[in-house]
Formats: sequence, structure tokens, C-alpha cells
Amino acid sequence: MVPDDRLHGDLPLTDAESAAGEVAADATLLTSGFGSVGYPKAVPEALAESRRDLALTVVSGGSVGPEIDTALVEADAIDRRYPFQARPEINEAVNDGSVAFSDRHISSLGDEVRFGGLVDPDVAVVEAVAVGEDWLIPSTSIGHTPPFVDAVDKLVVEVNRAQPRELAAFHDVYRLGDPPGREGVPLSAPGERVGDPRVGFDPEALAAVVETDRRDEPYTFREPTAVDEAIASNLGDFLEQEVERSPIFEESLRMQFGVGSLGNALMAALADADVGDRDLVYFGEVIQDGLLDLLDDGDLRVASATSLALSAEGQECLFEDAERYAEDVVLRPAELSNRPELVDRFGVVAVNSAVEVDLYGHVNSTHVGGSRMISGVGGSGDFVRNSPLSIIALPSTAGGGDVSKVRPMVTHVDHTEHDVDVIVTEHGVADLRGTSPRERARQLVECADSAFRPALEDYLDRAGEEGHTPHDLDSAFDWT
Amino acid sequence: MVPDDRLHGDLPLTDAESAAGEVAADATLLTSGFGSVGYPKAVPEALAESRRDLALTVVSGGSVGPEIDTALVEADAIDRRYPFQARPEINEAVNDGSVAFSDRHISSLGDEVRFGGLVDPDVAVVEAVAVGEDWLIPSTSIGHTPPFVDAVDKLVVEVNRAQPRELAAFHDVYRLGDPPGREGVPLSAPGERVGDPRVGFDPEALAAVVETDRRDEPYTFREPTAVDEAIASNLGDFLEQEVERSPIFEESLRMQFGVGSLGNALMAALADADVGDRDLVYFGEVIQDGLLDLLDDGDLRVASATSLALSAEGQECLFEDAERYAEDVVLRPAELSNRPELVDRFGVVAVNSAVEVDLYGHVNSTHVGGSRMISGVGGSGDFVRNSPLSIIALPSTAGGGDVSKVRPMVTHVDHTEHDVDVIVTEHGVADLRGTSPRERARQLVECADSAFRPALEDYLDRAGEEGHTPHDLDSAFDWT
Repeated sequence: MVPDDRLHGDLPLTDAESAAGEVAADATLLTSGFGSVGYPKAVPEALAESRRDLALTVVSGGSVGPEIDTALVEADAIDRRYPFQARPEINEAVNDGSVAFSDRHISSLGDEVRFGGLVDPDVAVVEAVAVGEDWLIPSTSIGHTPPFVDAVDKLVVEVNRAQPRELAAFHDVYRLGDPPGREGVPLSAPGERVGDPRVGFDPEALAAVVETDRRDEPYTFREPTAVDEAIASNLGDFLEQEVERSPIFEESLRMQFGVGSLGNALMAALADADVGDRDLVYFGEVIQDGLLDLLDDGDLRVASATSLALSAEGQECLFEDAERYAEDVVLRPAELSNRPELVDRFGVVAVNSAVEVDLYGHVNSTHVGGSRMISGVGGSGDFVRNSPLSIIALPSTAGGGDVSKVRPMVTHVDHTEHDVDVIVTEHGVADLRGTSPRERARQLVECADSAFRPALEDYLDRAGEEGHTPHDLDSAFDWT
Repeated sequence: MVPDDRLHGDLPLTDAESAAGEVAADATLLTSGFGSVGYPKAVPEALAESRRDLALTVVSGGSVGPEIDTALVEADAIDRRYPFQARPEINEAVNDGSVAFSDRHISSLGDEVRFGGLVDPDVAVVEAVAVGEDWLIPSTSIGHTPPFVDAVDKLVVEVNRAQPRELAAFHDVYRLGDPPGREGVPLSAPGERVGDPRVGFDPEALAAVVETDRRDEPYTFREPTAVDEAIASNLGDFLEQEVERSPIFEESLRMQFGVGSLGNALMAALADADVGDRDLVYFGEVIQDGLLDLLDDGDLRVASATSLALSAEGQECLFEDAERYAEDVVLRPAELSNRPELVDRFGVVAVNSAVEVDLYGHVNSTHVGGSRMISGVGGSGDFVRNSPLSIIALPSTAGGGDVSKVRPMVTHVDHTEHDVDVIVTEHGVADLRGTSPRERARQLVECADSAFRPALEDYLDRAGEEGHTPHDLDSAFDWT
């Protein structure tokens, strides 16, 4: 047998069908995967095809691929799901109530699984690029793999030969201790490494190792629209002023961007902002294509995240030159990439999108019409809440201009007025810092599409002058 | 001249009227004070009586006394106010819009003042028990005094001889660095001391020192009601189970309680809960009377906070024996007492009250009827968001039973469904961890008063089965 850089030691190698047998019909199953990459593929697929009567609780790191959130849902195998979901099939099941979903913050999920009373975990299935008898090396995301393998006494590892072994070079796995003896994270700069490329585990727990050879379902990013570009331009102008004003940006600008096409477009547009000779640093949860371009062009000094959420082209580009990219890119466990303590320590400017915002600065990131969940709060709350400068960037309308994303009152609140500093649309920048709700409303009307401004003004007239946050509850949702 | 333990060195001693002259008519004035104690008294009063045409921005640590939030409001001297207010006169001005108020989290206020774009500070007026040429010792609260004195180049100190000099024994002043070079807080246990009893400042900034001799306006706590006691009993039962279940409470139970009569009653009732031989530790923002009783009885090992928010009797009791109490009580800057990093590190169970909660676990802490502000979010968001076990405890009704505090949809969201783990009323405990919104609604109906349960059930019927979080927006606010 030739030496293998993927499999080390005496491993319980088996096929996906047998490994799937390690998962009890009503198990709480923890999976790797974040930003739709690095999730296990063969074992979930085998579970879906097993024709067993399954009633699983599935806890992933973040968003995962179709083998979990399509195939297992279509097989009616999932009863409960945390912390995030982003595919049509699981989304439908969450909204019709056939899957019980609880929308969780990313940064605290590891603790919730380990000792928070959220679930009683049975088995973890995680993807790796290499595995030994008591360690594994994650693939394209780290997500919650470290706390998940700690929380179970049964572990199944999928070793994926389609993911480059060189991904190890990105990983910095630091393990948090348990409260109250938990120590501060010993990380003094966004690009620093304080851990190990490997995730250790109890060798007694390793129940099965399965070999696979299948790429992640890649992201697709749409081309930036004219509206995206106008938002990016307003954001760039605001940041140019802010880096001059604030002493915490004297030498560098640390940024996080939300996942998605708008976030990707805003990242790319950062290259055009004039931030002087400041170092540009990324400290967020995912590396998207826009960041690779910034790295290639030398505009970005370092990037820290938990996932390589790339398009097919982005994957090609990174996989061809993984070790070079790893010089400037660090992947961390999601409880580190999103950690409140670190977002605060590094003073990370947070830029996230939203479904809608209201005139008083509350933000809805998850629901349409108050009832219908889209995907989940994800990591947005970790950054919005803890950033010294939290920016919500969104187009002023949806539905081809038929719906205003600036409303009198949002139908679901994911980020409160206390946490949101600035709102940017293609029409302008509302700097809410230090403003009263009435002052915010005047700024936000100007950020709405002109077609909706009269109705927003009418609402404010109806709301009147009574109260710190004047509302007319009779028409707060029925306002146009 | 006899040696004086209050005044050290060559100080610019003056009277309150002259010191008030250091405050420009349109100044941004930062004041000490938190939990309604340790605020400056003589200089604000002199400003209020000055008959000058004032348009001040007043930023306090937390809540302050009548010399600021009554007298200065009645003198029409305040244009803007942060971060919290709790007296009728300022409250009326906030609600009629004559004072522009922005409701801020406590933990991040120091950063917002120093470099967040909130205000451009001019002068700080702080109360002390002693002062030197480049240091002061805070009195009954530390609040935001350290970042406030850092943020200004003009400082006025009131040395209050009615506050015992021995209060120095409580203080542990640690200064946070600036992002991105900020270090983790080197605190490894709730009762540890890592700083200094004194707050240092730039001696060039010291513009005036005024002597005063006046106690804080004391807190008044109402006697616990039968409802308070039923809530306390439900909370106690829940905690007894939880400490057995979770490994993070194996050796000790760290608790925070919100400010007010209910919080005070719940603290006192903790003495009756059977938590085995675990150490009971308080890590919160205020020391209330209930905690002194627990300390006296040996039920509490250590308490960390930023303010001694006591009744007149509590003050007597503590002032008579300050040095003994200081063996077990530490006062910290509010940015430490409420720090997300520390709430997480120590795994602090957070117990806060609320105005109302909704069937899906959103919490309103600040507004009545959507429009009318009560006092502010205070530190509740710091604890609710970062605690591994965040409990909202409240009576099921208000207005003598006429109003349900469990509603279909809250009219203002201060804490989102993502942050709230458990809701306790006198009727029961809703453990929301891991539940879908539909499951939460069923639990929360049971926590409502029986008079309102049919109307809540009717609402859920109208909301139907569509969506992850079923709502009927037409009747979400008009539901009874």
C-alpha cells in the first residue's frame, strides 16, 4: 500500500451506506459545513436514500448543500433543524411547519450545542481533507466542527479527495474553554494564528471513515446591478469620511461583509474607495469571490473567516494556488470568526444587507410579511451587535420597484435600533448615530425610493407627535 | 491646614457656580452616575439655577438623580440626552420630543463617546470621594467615568464628603485599550481585581474641584407582591433543574439581575433556591439591597457591579461597614461590568424584566404602545445577548390585570427571539431553547393570565398555518 496523505493510521474505513447506519433514526446529527461548503455529502445522501423512517434533528455549522437540505428534506427525514437554512426545499418545510426550525446566532451555537440545552447530540458527520485516529483536517469550511466533535461520542468522517489537501494551510483551530474558566481568546491581530490546522477528537468516538470525491455545490453570484453600484458608491464615500474622522481607523480598516451577491459586489467596490495608505483587512465569516480579487490585486492585506464560499471559478482559482492564498487567508472555527469579543477588539466595520428597515432604524433580516422565513439571521447579529460601526446596506426597493424596503415598522426585528449605526441605500446614507427616532425618520425618508416618500411622510403625519418613537399602530403595516 | 484625606496636592478649588461656568452653553457634558448614584450634584444644580440659555448634550453613565434629570430639564437646559433616563421630567421631555434621546447599550457607550461618532465631548463633571492633581476616586458608582475623563480636555470634579472615603476599597478600575490593539480583559474570575481604585486623568484637564456634602437620592424598592413571589418560585424551580443539567454550573452559579423592585425581589428569593453546594456569584451592573442581604447571610460569595444602587437603609448598612463589604464586592467601570466578553467568559445567567413579551419570544423593554419610551434598554441587552442562559421574568399582566404582558406581537423589540432562552411569569416557565416559533407560542399561552388565553388562542387561529412565524398583521396589535 502506498503512503496516503489523506488517511493516517488504523481507521474504520467503510462505505457511505454502512456509515449512515451509525445514525439512529431519531438521532441528533451535527454536521460540518458553513457558507454552503465543507459539508458532508455521501453519508447524508445515503441516509436520504436509505428508505428508513427517519426523524432527525440536524444541526449544521451554517448553510449546507443539497445532500442535506434538499435530499434529506425530500426524504422527509428531518424533524428539527438549526441554525440556518438557505435552500428552497428546507425553506418550504420550515415555513409549512413540517420542520421545526430555530434561528440561531452563529457565534453562540457551539456553546448552545455543548451545554446550552439546545439539543442532546448523538453523532457528528464532518467533511475533512485528511484524517487520523484522533484528528481531522477540515475542508473548505471549519464552521462548528470543533465544538461539534467535542459534543458527541460518535463521529463519522468523510474524507473528500476532490478538496485539495493543501486546504490545511488555511486552518487555525483554537478551542474555547468552558465557562466560567474560559480564557480570553489570545488573538491580537485578525491575521494571527494561535491554533492548529487539525481538529483533535477522542479516538474512541471515531465510528466510521468514508472516502468521497465530490466538489461542493458552488455559490453563484449575480453580476452587480446599477443599484448595487450606487449603494457601493455611497458606502465608499461614507467610509472615506469615517476613516479620516475616527482614531480607530488611523492605521487600518477592518471590514466584514454579509454573504451574498450584494455583499460580494460591495467588497469588490472597496478597491475603489480611497482609504489612504491604510491597510485593508477582512474579518468576517466567509471569503467570497470579491475578496479573492482584492487579494490578487494587493488591495487586501489579510482575510480571516470560517468558510471559502466561492463560485466555481473562485474555487478553481483558489484550489490552483491554495498555499499562496493561505499566506494571507486564515480560516477559523465559526465561534472565533464571529466572536463578539474579537469583533469588538479589532473594531470591525460590519456591512450587512437586510430584507427591510424601518424609519426608526430597526432591521428585518429574515422574514417576509412577518410570517415567512427566508433563511436565517446567520452571523449578521454577531457583527451588527458588536461592531463599533454597523452599517446596513440595501436597495431601497424590491419586486422591481413595487415594494419599499424602507417601511414605517418592520414586520420582524432581527437587529434593534440600539445596534444599527448607519443605513445605506442607492439614494443616500442615513447616519443614525446619536439621533433620536424622530431624527432618524427624517433621514430614512430620504433613503427611500422617491415613489414611496409621500406615503412615508403621510405615515409620520398620522403617527403624530406623541411619544419618543411616534407610531400609528393601526396603519404601521398597512401604510401605502 | 490639617491633612485632608479628600483633597491632595494643588487643586483648582472653587464653588459650584464658578465651576458651572466651565460648561459652555451648548456643551456636550459627560457626567458620572449609574444606577441613580454617584452622579454630580452641585454643578448641575448650579447650571440649572444659572438662568443661562443652555442647550446641553448630557451623557451620563446610566441613570442619575434629580439635579440632572429633573432640575436641568425644568430649566430647559438639555437638548440631547444619552444613554438612559428614569425620572418623570426627563421622560416627559423625551416623549414630547423636546429632548432628543438615543437609547444606547451600556457596554458600548464608552467606545461610542471616545470614538464612535456619537458626540463630540467638551467637559466631564464627575463625583469623587477624593481627588488629586491627576487622579480621582469615584464614589457610589464608577459607571463610565474612566472613558469619559479620557474623552475630554476639561474636567470638573465634585468631592462629596457625604460619601465615605472608604468606598475606594470597592473600586477596580481597568482601562480598555483602543481597537484594533485592544487586549482581552485579563479577568479570570468575577471577583478578581486587575486595576486600581483610582481613575487617572490628564492633569492639564482639571479645570475645577468643588466640595459637596450631599447623599445620593436613594432607591426605593416596593415590598415583593404575591406575584413577585410566584415568579421567584418558578424561577427558583427552573434554576434548580438547570444547575443539575448543565456542566457549566457544576461548581458555581453566576447570576445577573435587572435593576428594580422585581429584580431585587428575585435576588432575595435566590437564598431559598436549592443549588446544592455551588458557590453563588453575582456579576451584574448594580448591587441592590437584596444582594446585601445575601452577602450578610453568607449565601453569596462575591458580587461584581458598577454601582451601589441602594435604598436609604441599604446605604446606611453599607456605609457603616464599607471595608468589610468591600472584601466580597467589586465595583468596575460599566464597560467591564456589562462587557459581552465577560458575560460570555463567566457564563452569567441573566435575569431581566420587560414591559411585554410576544408569543414568539421577542421582548419589549422600553416602550408602551409602540411610541412611548419608559426609560431605556440600559444594560439589559448586554446581558440578554451574551448570556448562555438568558431569562426574562415578568408578571403576566399590568394595570391591575387589565393588560396582558404576553401579546401576539410586541410593539417595540429590544431583545430578539435569537437572544431570549426562557420566559418566566407567575403562571409558569416557557423554555424556548431549541423550539420553533409555533412551539414557543404554545408554551407562552400557558404563561399568560388565564383571562387572556382565549384571545391569544384566537389570534393564533387567525394567524393560521402559513409561515415559520405565523402572524395576522391586521390584528397583531389589536387582538383582544
